[in-house]
Amino acid sequence: MYLEDVQDAARRLEGVAHRTPTVTSRTFDELTGTTSFFKPENLQRGGAFKFRGAYNAISSLPADQLARGVAAFSSGNHAQAVSIAAGMVGTHAVILMPEDAPAAKVQATRGYGAEVVTYDRYTEDREALGRALAEDRGMTLVPPYEHPLVMAGQGTAALELLADAPDLDVLVVPVGGGGLIAGCSTVAKALRPGIRVVGVEPEEGDDTRQSLAAGERIDIGVPRTIADGLQATIPGALTFEVNRRLVDEIVTVTDAQLVDAMRFAFDRMKLVVEPSGAAGFAALMAGAVPAAGGKRVGVVISGGNVGSARFAELVGAS
Amino acid sequence: MYLEDVQDAARRLEGVAHRTPTVTSRTFDELTGTTSFFKPENLQRGGAFKFRGAYNAISSLPADQLARGVAAFSSGNHAQAVSIAAGMVGTHAVILMPEDAPAAKVQATRGYGAEVVTYDRYTEDREALGRALAEDRGMTLVPPYEHPLVMAGQGTAALELLADAPDLDVLVVPVGGGGLIAGCSTVAKALRPGIRVVGVEPEEGDDTRQSLAAGERIDIGVPRTIADGLQATIPGALTFEVNRRLVDEIVTVTDAQLVDAMRFAFDRMKLVVEPSGAAGFAALMAGAVPAAGGKRVGVVISGGNVGSARFAELVGAS
Repeated sequence: MYLEDVQDAARRLEGVAHRTPTVTSRTFDELTGTTSFFKPENLQRGGAFKFRGAYNAISSLPADQLARGVAAFSSGNHAQAVSIAAGMVGTHAVILMPEDAPAAKVQATRGYGAEVVTYDRYTEDREALGRALAEDRGMTLVPPYEHPLVMAGQGTAALELLADAPDLDVLVVPVGGGGLIAGCSTVAKALRPGIRVVGVEPEEGDDTRQSLAAGERIDIGVPRTIADGLQATIPGALTFEVNRRLVDEIVTVTDAQLVDAMRFAFDRMKLVVEPSGAAGFAALMAGAVPAAGGKRVGVVISGGNVGSARFAELVGAS
Repeated sequence: MYLEDVQDAARRLEGVAHRTPTVTSRTFDELTGTTSFFKPENLQRGGAFKFRGAYNAISSLPADQLARGVAAFSSGNHAQAVSIAAGMVGTHAVILMPEDAPAAKVQATRGYGAEVVTYDRYTEDREALGRALAEDRGMTLVPPYEHPLVMAGQGTAALELLADAPDLDVLVVPVGGGGLIAGCSTVAKALRPGIRVVGVEPEEGDDTRQSLAAGERIDIGVPRTIADGLQATIPGALTFEVNRRLVDEIVTVTDAQLVDAMRFAFDRMKLVVEPSGAAGFAALMAGAVPAAGGKRVGVVISGGNVGSARFAELVGAS
């Protein structure tokens, strides 16, 4: 994947994806000693960056393949993205979702027109199930990150952020399967070679950190964390190949730090951010990313799909 | 006040106020039968549109007057706005706030550097107190709406919205003291004479509706509503003079409808909206604004200053 692949994706997404704004917060800057620029992909279609990759992949399918429909397996945000993208290009979608996925995500996915099939994420292999499902129905499987067009589409978030804030010193990106950071680091390192790309994982879900340290992909089993979008068990093969070259560092955050960051985003920035989406905020607020002294930091907010009831439960109680 | 006054304000605010984006929601459109364009002033500096008016007025003061500082009385959002604007132009601010104002608003106002003095909104006259306070200290009082520069600054929200969505059929604006809708309707009727301007008030706080019906300003006493930003007891003299000419209709919403709208904004649009700010959403969702049949509707979201704990209390419980 090269910068050009992300630029091609940006052309496909123009007028289709929302061009989310770049937002800033003096309070956040004072708190962290940084000059930070946030990319709020919670305001993207479907409430997360996932639409960028899904639409880029689906809209590139040949017509006959497209007509047979698309399938996806996802903990939630990719599901909504595929559902919306399928609707926009006029085909149907079947989505395999964990049965304990947040109700708001399942409901939204159905609302966008997709058929939802559930599985148990602690006992069943979603990739095998997803492939079988796609094969049975002759549908094309749209993976959530393991696909060059998906990664390239996801990288358009950084392309836009760097257009608004070109002179970033650091780029902070949440890491699940690694597609978002793979696309973003491809853009960032091409446009600004000296930039430091920092990934953020949940403390209990640091498969990419462990894998980078080991120099090979490590499977850590399903991590228990409130960051349901970052519950990858092992980095993707394609994403790891990119990230081992381009990601400078992975830092981790606790669930409590994610909740603090969600509260800050709500109270001070008026943004609804899901636990996974708050990873960048949380890492900076916890001082886990060395960026004080006024460094210019780009922070990708990956998504905002947390229901109001769940938010109240997580944030309101304390 | 003319369109030119708002355009002058826009020049003063360029690069100072956030140019908030225009956002859309297919789900909202399907739900309401409209094509709606939201102006999320919850993402403005200080979390509300008030900064536009406060900065426009304060930055226009002569240097000697500015040096003596500014004072304001406010239920909260104007307080934060004056505090931020004063800090940006390098003067100090004293803010008179009701003692039952939301804690998040008082805290934020102090955080921005202002001195806060409290009063009892049910027994004391805030305007008289504010004037006495300003006079005692030789400070200039910056009113929350009763000032041509404040109204003109507030109107820049509509100027930006109409730049992004020029062919609106209807513009829906929350109504407290009436400054926001006065500024916005001045812009809207000048740029698009056929547009219908609809104000929204809380059911219990319909002083402007009653006043328009009576042809004169009616004092309704302090209304009890969760929409603390819309608790005006009587329209402003200056704002009423504009609004009686330019506002086509006032509709009302209940507190329960405001909470439903806040929940929708959170769950589907990832926006933190305070009760007052949700008035436009609520009116459209309740069918109170005749705009179905795909009418193109502009909706001003006036603010997002509701603390996460209060939000959880209002929205999470049900």
